[in-house]
Amino acid sequence: MAGNSFGKLFKLITFGESHGKAIGGIIDGCPAGITIDFEAIQNEMNRRKPGQSKIVTQRKEADEVEFYSGIFEGQTTGTPIGFVIHNTNQKSKDYSHIKDVYRPSHADYTYEKKYGRRDYRGGGRSSARETACRVVAGAIAKQMLSELKINAYTSSVGDIFCEKPYQDLDFSKTETNAIRCPDDATAEKMISKVQEIKKQGDTVGGTITCVIQNVPVGLGEPVFDKLHAELGKAMLSINAVKGFEYGSGFCGARMKGSEHNDLFNDDGTTKTNLSGGVQGGISNGMDIYFRVAFKPVATVLQKQDALNSDGDIIEMQGKGRHDPCVVPRAVPIVEAMAALVMADYVLLRRQETKDW
Amino acid sequence: MAGNSFGKLFKLITFGESHGKAIGGIIDGCPAGITIDFEAIQNEMNRRKPGQSKIVTQRKEADEVEFYSGIFEGQTTGTPIGFVIHNTNQKSKDYSHIKDVYRPSHADYTYEKKYGRRDYRGGGRSSARETACRVVAGAIAKQMLSELKINAYTSSVGDIFCEKPYQDLDFSKTETNAIRCPDDATAEKMISKVQEIKKQGDTVGGTITCVIQNVPVGLGEPVFDKLHAELGKAMLSINAVKGFEYGSGFCGARMKGSEHNDLFNDDGTTKTNLSGGVQGGISNGMDIYFRVAFKPVATVLQKQDALNSDGDIIEMQGKGRHDPCVVPRAVPIVEAMAALVMADYVLLRRQETKDW
Amino acid sequence: MAGNSFGKLFKLITFGESHGKAIGGIIDGCPAGITIDFEAIQNEMNRRKPGQSKIVTQRKEADEVEFYSGIFEGQTTGTPIGFVIHNTNQKSKDYSHIKDVYRPSHADYTYEKKYGRRDYRGGGRSSARETACRVVAGAIAKQMLSELKINAYTSSVGDIFCEKPYQDLDFSKTETNAIRCPDDATAEKMISKVQEIKKQGDTVGGTITCVIQNVPVGLGEPVFDKLHAELGKAMLSINAVKGFEYGSGFCGARMKGSEHNDLFNDDGTTKTNLSGGVQGGISNGMDIYFRVAFKPVATVLQKQDALNSDGDIIEMQGKGRHDPCVVPRAVPIVEAMAALVMADYVLLRRQETKDW
Amino acid sequence: MAGNSFGKLFKLITFGESHGKAIGGIIDGCPAGITIDFEAIQNEMNRRKPGQSKIVTQRKEADEVEFYSGIFEGQTTGTPIGFVIHNTNQKSKDYSHIKDVYRPSHADYTYEKKYGRRDYRGGGRSSARETACRVVAGAIAKQMLSELKINAYTSSVGDIFCEKPYQDLDFSKTETNAIRCPDDATAEKMISKVQEIKKQGDTVGGTITCVIQNVPVGLGEPVFDKLHAELGKAMLSINAVKGFEYGSGFCGARMKGSEHNDLFNDDGTTKTNLSGGVQGGISNGMDIYFRVAFKPVATVLQKQDALNSDGDIIEMQGKGRHDPCVVPRAVPIVEAMAALVMADYVLLRRQETKDW
Repeated sequence: MAGNSFGKLFKLITFGESHGKAIGGIIDGCPAGITIDFEAIQNEMNRRKPGQSKIVTQRKEADEVEFYSGIFEGQTTGTPIGFVIHNTNQKSKDYSHIKDVYRPSHADYTYEKKYGRRDYRGGGRSSARETACRVVAGAIAKQMLSELKINAYTSSVGDIFCEKPYQDLDFSKTETNAIRCPDDATAEKMISKVQEIKKQGDTVGGTITCVIQNVPVGLGEPVFDKLHAELGKAMLSINAVKGFEYGSGFCGARMKGSEHNDLFNDDGTTKTNLSGGVQGGISNGMDIYFRVAFKPVATVLQKQDALNSDGDIIEMQGKGRHDPCVVPRAVPIVEAMAALVMADYVLLRRQETKDW
Repeated sequence: MAGNSFGKLFKLITFGESHGKAIGGIIDGCPAGITIDFEAIQNEMNRRKPGQSKIVTQRKEADEVEFYSGIFEGQTTGTPIGFVIHNTNQKSKDYSHIKDVYRPSHADYTYEKKYGRRDYRGGGRSSARETACRVVAGAIAKQMLSELKINAYTSSVGDIFCEKPYQDLDFSKTETNAIRCPDDATAEKMISKVQEIKKQGDTVGGTITCVIQNVPVGLGEPVFDKLHAELGKAMLSINAVKGFEYGSGFCGARMKGSEHNDLFNDDGTTKTNLSGGVQGGISNGMDIYFRVAFKPVATVLQKQDALNSDGDIIEMQGKGRHDPCVVPRAVPIVEAMAALVMADYVLLRRQETKDW
Repeated sequence: MAGNSFGKLFKLITFGESHGKAIGGIIDGCPAGITIDFEAIQNEMNRRKPGQSKIVTQRKEADEVEFYSGIFEGQTTGTPIGFVIHNTNQKSKDYSHIKDVYRPSHADYTYEKKYGRRDYRGGGRSSARETACRVVAGAIAKQMLSELKINAYTSSVGDIFCEKPYQDLDFSKTETNAIRCPDDATAEKMISKVQEIKKQGDTVGGTITCVIQNVPVGLGEPVFDKLHAELGKAMLSINAVKGFEYGSGFCGARMKGSEHNDLFNDDGTTKTNLSGGVQGGISNGMDIYFRVAFKPVATVLQKQDALNSDGDIIEMQGKGRHDPCVVPRAVPIVEAMAALVMADYVLLRRQETKDW
Repeated sequence: MAGNSFGKLFKLITFGESHGKAIGGIIDGCPAGITIDFEAIQNEMNRRKPGQSKIVTQRKEADEVEFYSGIFEGQTTGTPIGFVIHNTNQKSKDYSHIKDVYRPSHADYTYEKKYGRRDYRGGGRSSARETACRVVAGAIAKQMLSELKINAYTSSVGDIFCEKPYQDLDFSKTETNAIRCPDDATAEKMISKVQEIKKQGDTVGGTITCVIQNVPVGLGEPVFDKLHAELGKAMLSINAVKGFEYGSGFCGARMKGSEHNDLFNDDGTTKTNLSGGVQGGISNGMDIYFRVAFKPVATVLQKQDALNSDGDIIEMQGKGRHDPCVVPRAVPIVEAMAALVMADYVLLRRQETKDW
């Protein structure tokens, strides 16, 4: 209820602050009998972790997951999977200089007002470090959903867009460049853009597109728990996300019905897919695709005004190791959250239809 | 779990198909002691109901709410509020001609595949008629949240946009025209657009902007249940919605951090509000604003191909009384869902902070 | 959250006060495709309803259920089942004389202190009239669980006990007498007891035993949601219930391990069943049986002291039509709640094990 | 959903098997600003831990809790409290001899049938080792509920009962003897009984009584989530529990209404308290008291038949370090679960009544 859990049947609950001893989580509801590929989990972690390339933060975190329960002899047992990621790279320096400072467009102010206190070392609970736990759980969800193909990629950085539709992209190329855009030419431009921004001590936003393929018909619940509504919530729960659209999205709002309707083929597939794979909140078997907007990282390495707890405006300057653009590291997070949503709906689907 | 309830502490659960005996719902968790203004509830219903103007469907529904419980001597009692809206205008004609037809971009196909059957009279459960129940509950939530101002309006129809920022609009004018745009000149253009589209037997999409004012600091839960994530889910759960963005939204993804950060005033307010009133998932006391994209209505009064259950592509033509543009009727629904989200977070907030 | 819903996947939410317009509920999560036997539902309602025999209250309520949604052409559709039972026998007399009186061992005082007000006509929301909605939902759950046999019966009234173990009883005889004890000789004694108590203007407690047979192995969840824990909660949520025990129950607490252990047969069944069909919170395929204790009805037709809202002790006398013993009418309620629990766990079980 | 979490607003989720690397949990929803007394937590752990006296198992576990998050500078921060208890005393011996054996009245058989596999080292997830996590969370709940007094004690062992009503006992004496019965004379008899049983290589059941004092009026939710129903579920979720009764309990079922009703004093308290502090599911300010029945431990150090996975009945003998009577170690677990229930209802109560 307090907001630290996600999912109904395949459920993740996480804990941990960026500068505490450890972060971690519990996956409750993962079915028994799934063979766990630990290397695949670590690979996902490595896609998210800091220090992986020149265009992300140079902080170093091992980000090694330790599993404490729920996996026995290499397989899930049906009992909760508890896991922990120790924080190894918290700088022991004194944070007291930012103890009483609310950085602009960070959650310092709102956390303090809400809780009457906060762990002021780094972002505490509001830090994106928490998303490491989502990547662990998402990696397990992916292994449970081996039929599904979930591919996210960077579709824009600032005003540089990947103009090709996803159908023309080769997702196997996403991991071949630091920005995670499967179109080489665009990737290069994006990387230059980030480097330029970084030199300015500034940051830049971007978008991620995610495509889910091989989806069976019938996933999703009616009315409030529509499949795309839950995907939307999942994405909007990621740090720095400002928007979500699926299928035709905001462009669809400019169209006419005669243009927008997806006409059927006789096998139930559709000739077009402006619907984005979902009708009435339920998957129709076509590709699900959606786009997620990320704002620029709030910590800029330039002088800025901030507020302190005495109500004074003070000048501060971000320093240290920060991401000039969060998007490439957010690609595995988007995939992880998509996997968590799909895992939940698959389990919900199972109980609707089968005899026991 | 099956998707027909919304909210955690202020909870709405709805039932009913468009052509059954009645639709209705239960509000569980509404605090005791709220004086109910029944006329205000009916006013909200009238804003949503069909037949209210020339640019919406000419179907007639009384849409009168009957309350069965939870209100005693004009005040809520703390017990569940059960209510029913009888369906009075289901045409008794034979629906058997569409019984076996899946209309394009409707939920006919997905419901049938999911459940193995469907109530084929109108949209059944997938009909937007269900949203009438949301408006009832939202009206009560608004009465509980009398300090908050929640105003939605039509911000675009097709390619006609209301260019003024919401700060320059007078929300008291929203109800003075049929399209629910508070800018008169734009409203006229939008109405002409809808009339033109209607003559073509076609439909058109649009967007709604919603602004929530007088929000206290501290609403919203961290990590997965961020305030904007739940608002996003709420909006995406409304029929025909394809996208959601708040604050700077998709535009924010094109910006630099130095431009995007909202600098503080010394009272904790911010000079700009690209954040849209939420930092780290928690309200910061600034206006919350967001934009919702609606696709064009799928039922067009033109010939279209459809699929039948034998796997044949057949030609069909929508007929009867349909909305050429769903947006004006969706304005009160957006407000209702916003009110439900806020009511829930207000109750969550109460238990965090006060001594009993 | 506010306590008016039960179940996770097969979910019932109810509304209504004893003297409001109607009571009712929504069943959300009932699978599609279950053929509904409306007569069987009404039969269950008749087992619970007042006025059915000389040893229960002589109040008359038609207790006819009206279904508004979720059932189409005689089968469930997978969408929420909304239903209403109109209150037809609220006496229009003035209740103002008990408006400010808290009856002893009723919920008048606690409801008023909790909510700051109450519907003082009858018991309002705390009235056992609410259980009629549980019987509706339980009847549908039973139809979903047609393989299971759920049989409850009156096992004691005051100090008259049915001494035979359930294995020696013929459940088909439960409905042949007014007290619902399948052992004729005991039933007669129980009925005499109730009649004697009734003449005294008094009331008496009793117990109900419930047996669930043909249970597959594997229902129930570990740790907190053990099958018997949820059964216990379900029973303790029924008005007037003071205790719950399953299998060996409180007697088991006096035994030695060497006596209490249920030794296996080679097919996995056990020679004895002191475990009551559940091991570690999970069904083992043996009969589940439990016993529920009901206190005597609080309304006695004798003079008693009560408290009024001014803090005065006043003398009052219950009058009208009340049950001298609630147990016979509670038998179908116990079965209904057992069916709801089992339906929920069956759906939970389905999603654990099957490929989709 | 999968059964490993408890509570709605003050929520505990646990993980871990008896012979895995660690057990642990997350407390989500603990309010900010509670000063944590770590020594008090460890004291509760010590009351539960093995090896504490001659009448409990001689296994040794340090049972030291490590907190990873949610506590900063000695106070709760409002964010989730993650904690871990490392398993230090798993014997590295080969468990393969019981790998394929289902011990009678253990959960071996049901877990294996449910999940298709199990962690066969010790009881795995079904081991009462899991309750250590409940004690951690309960200790924190107690610190949040400092006004409430929650005292449990051993009220019977086998057929030796503490005859004194709880009002005549001095709870400060509970911890002065190994059996945790505050009546010295009875405690001695109970201890002798356990020693005698232990010599026989047998085990014995017992009951625990729990009393909650200083409870404000108004805790508890109507209908399904009655305060005593949730307490019942909480207790029935503890390993080895077979029954729960509160107030007059099963005895109440033998009484007459004129005897059973609790007459009011003019301050709203009652002269008697057969109701057990709860009316209509809501606390009335009187003491809440209830009794919990524990079966004898299933592992006896005598020869017994067991079943193996080939369907053979084989002879086996429990060996090693087991509790002859679980009751004294269960006393802190009962208190912990009571504290968790009360914490949840206090938070639910807060949001019902206060302006924000």
